[in-house]
Amino acid sequence: MVLLALNAGAAPAAPSSQYPNAADSDPVKLGWMVGSPPPADRILRFEDGSYFKFPAMRWSVAHFRELMPTVNISRGLQPAAPLPRALRDDIDGLEFKRLDTGETMRWRASLAANYTDGIVVLHKGRIVYERYAGALQPDGQHAAMSVTKSFIGTLAAMLVAEGKLNPERKVADYVPELAVSAFGSATVRQVMDMTTGIRFSEDYADPQAEVWAHAAAGNPLPKPKDFSGPRSYYEFLQTVQAQGQHGEAFGYRTANTDALGWIIARVSGQSVAQLLSNRIWSRLGAEQDAYMSVDATGTPFAGGGLNTGLRDLARFGEMVRNNGFFNGQQIIPAAAIADIRQGGKPADFAKAGYTLLPGWSYRNMWWITHNDHGAFAARGVHGQTLYIDPKAEMVIARYGSHPVAGNAANDPTSLPAFEALATHLMKDGN
Amino acid sequence: MVLLALNAGAAPAAPSSQYPNAADSDPVKLGWMVGSPPPADRILRFEDGSYFKFPAMRWSVAHFRELMPTVNISRGLQPAAPLPRALRDDIDGLEFKRLDTGETMRWRASLAANYTDGIVVLHKGRIVYERYAGALQPDGQHAAMSVTKSFIGTLAAMLVAEGKLNPERKVADYVPELAVSAFGSATVRQVMDMTTGIRFSEDYADPQAEVWAHAAAGNPLPKPKDFSGPRSYYEFLQTVQAQGQHGEAFGYRTANTDALGWIIARVSGQSVAQLLSNRIWSRLGAEQDAYMSVDATGTPFAGGGLNTGLRDLARFGEMVRNNGFFNGQQIIPAAAIADIRQGGKPADFAKAGYTLLPGWSYRNMWWITHNDHGAFAARGVHGQTLYIDPKAEMVIARYGSHPVAGNAANDPTSLPAFEALATHLMKDGN
Repeated sequence: MVLLALNAGAAPAAPSSQYPNAADSDPVKLGWMVGSPPPADRILRFEDGSYFKFPAMRWSVAHFRELMPTVNISRGLQPAAPLPRALRDDIDGLEFKRLDTGETMRWRASLAANYTDGIVVLHKGRIVYERYAGALQPDGQHAAMSVTKSFIGTLAAMLVAEGKLNPERKVADYVPELAVSAFGSATVRQVMDMTTGIRFSEDYADPQAEVWAHAAAGNPLPKPKDFSGPRSYYEFLQTVQAQGQHGEAFGYRTANTDALGWIIARVSGQSVAQLLSNRIWSRLGAEQDAYMSVDATGTPFAGGGLNTGLRDLARFGEMVRNNGFFNGQQIIPAAAIADIRQGGKPADFAKAGYTLLPGWSYRNMWWITHNDHGAFAARGVHGQTLYIDPKAEMVIARYGSHPVAGNAANDPTSLPAFEALATHLMKDGN
Repeated sequence: MVLLALNAGAAPAAPSSQYPNAADSDPVKLGWMVGSPPPADRILRFEDGSYFKFPAMRWSVAHFRELMPTVNISRGLQPAAPLPRALRDDIDGLEFKRLDTGETMRWRASLAANYTDGIVVLHKGRIVYERYAGALQPDGQHAAMSVTKSFIGTLAAMLVAEGKLNPERKVADYVPELAVSAFGSATVRQVMDMTTGIRFSEDYADPQAEVWAHAAAGNPLPKPKDFSGPRSYYEFLQTVQAQGQHGEAFGYRTANTDALGWIIARVSGQSVAQLLSNRIWSRLGAEQDAYMSVDATGTPFAGGGLNTGLRDLARFGEMVRNNGFFNGQQIIPAAAIADIRQGGKPADFAKAGYTLLPGWSYRNMWWITHNDHGAFAARGVHGQTLYIDPKAEMVIARYGSHPVAGNAANDPTSLPAFEALATHLMKDGN
């Protein structure tokens, strides 16, 4: 099964302590898929789910394309945009207080605690910190998981700012096939902010949860002979039923992003992968191509299928921090970034019950902290994040492979670390 | 089924005239996999073979990764090596005589006749001609088919030149698992030059041909429940039986390259994809990553799984033309290139019966013309080729999607065109 879209904020299913720690689960040391051939117990397969069991998953997050079909997101052929380096040695020792226990922890220790595969910190556009672990290298690509959603939301916000997409129109106006589903009567804005009233459970403990049908539909492998469900993301979306009212509450449901991807494809005439390449990746000075997983009809998995190099994730974050301007050009209209940064309604967000994220909101598929730095983030399961702190002029791109999917497992040792680093960087005045 | 390794020199199965011409089979015009979703009759799938039927195949050759798992061949993060441009307008009108009918044809017309997807001509290291058609763009990647073999042979020749691989030793000395197969008693040299005595028919009209078991073994899709054959390239190679004697005749059999890939992986401790990235692609100043298809155990398809950008294929050719030196460094030992260029034994080659390739030989997985220019080539089905003419200081990289697999279908309008262009370029004295 394709487990790429787990709830980015859900409570942990099990305490982290039941898993081997970062050193003991090091995918390089464990030697997945190494050898000619690899030993039988080190071969990972997509078809049987072995690729996504912990700790094997720590290899897979940096090797998805070796397990499934994917579509390229070309960087174009132009030179990479330089990311100047101004590395600092005072960050590893930075102290912060864990959100859960209140204990003091050092930055360096937080990396292993969070099973960080790679982290880049930009301050004023310069790399001040960069570390790799797990199966990730500077020239490798890592699964962004639901960080993908923020890319899709940014593309949508861009189309809105350009007048090509009207967020107040109904979804069915753009994608008539969705009229039969609960999406049809929602506005594009409700989809963009995930305030649709749809039945889409991402409770993986429940075999009836809609997320299983979603994953089965999007699975690119041949369908079993007796398979009777939807056979693509688009077919799945047409089956989504109503639950509750549109526009009343934030509910984190991956299907919204796939619906938004469909809307974007209709409006732009390009798949989200093509649009991401043409409008962002090829203008960003990315140093590597990115890619997305696809279903059996070639549709990219908008809800969670993106894979990128870590520094390129940081470049994207720096572009967003600079209100859409990067690599010598305005890549995304400033109005689109402003609309992300203003956030959604914290009251809507509060209904979703994220106790670790008080006062936050969700807008254009981004998570908005509403803290006094105006920080906002893209977030994906197992610790993927792009954290942007405008006041501190700081961007943190982190890929990880935490054994627990929900970010509630790593937020206690991530969010206060990010805030402490922001404060620390601001002290220098340089 | 995976049909990536068809005999690069076999006679055509049917006359080209039964197929729509290049314009009528234009994959962009036909709109494969375009739309959200694509129309049902424009969706291509790996599992049912629809992706490789003509004319759909013309899309697939530039989109293999969207249909199957693949492994990246990183270019690294350094700048691309420049390929200076000195475009000429006198090439389209160049005339040559077709090998088959003797009729005069113009260069420009040969491109459509050969279903060329892209062609780059370097003269003295500068791009003098460049065209794209079909589904290929400068920033896209195309299947190299059996041109892959020459990359693998070059890696092996490199390891020989570096003293890491002894071509006179038996295959079983390096890969003990192959002792049970006909490969075990062959020398590495015999594998490198395809003079092994093995039973491996690539006659696709014969359902008992070994190539089908080879393709089934390497197919990355889940095996059917009742599947009893080998389940990976390496498992298949262990089943290969003897036929004839080693060292007596050239016989173009893809299994040799997969066996060579296994030997290379054992000797280097890296897969051929990793070795290609580390030793060549990351030093070549390639402008794009390349990739290879993989089997269910992650083994790259050495016999035909490579996909590259067209200009990068030209860069590789220019490196070989310059005896291993390119992008400011000696990438492949000059001795390895010399060993390729000297060729094999034309008498061995003649036994294979390629009537269009008189006096040629095969060495280190390259095709050697032994003409008075010392030209040699990498060749793959459906028109893939890298043609190097040392005397004319010319390199031609061409990707294509000819409806007929065997190159005998396109050689009559390719080889004399290449020779005429070489002569033409030499006239200038510049």
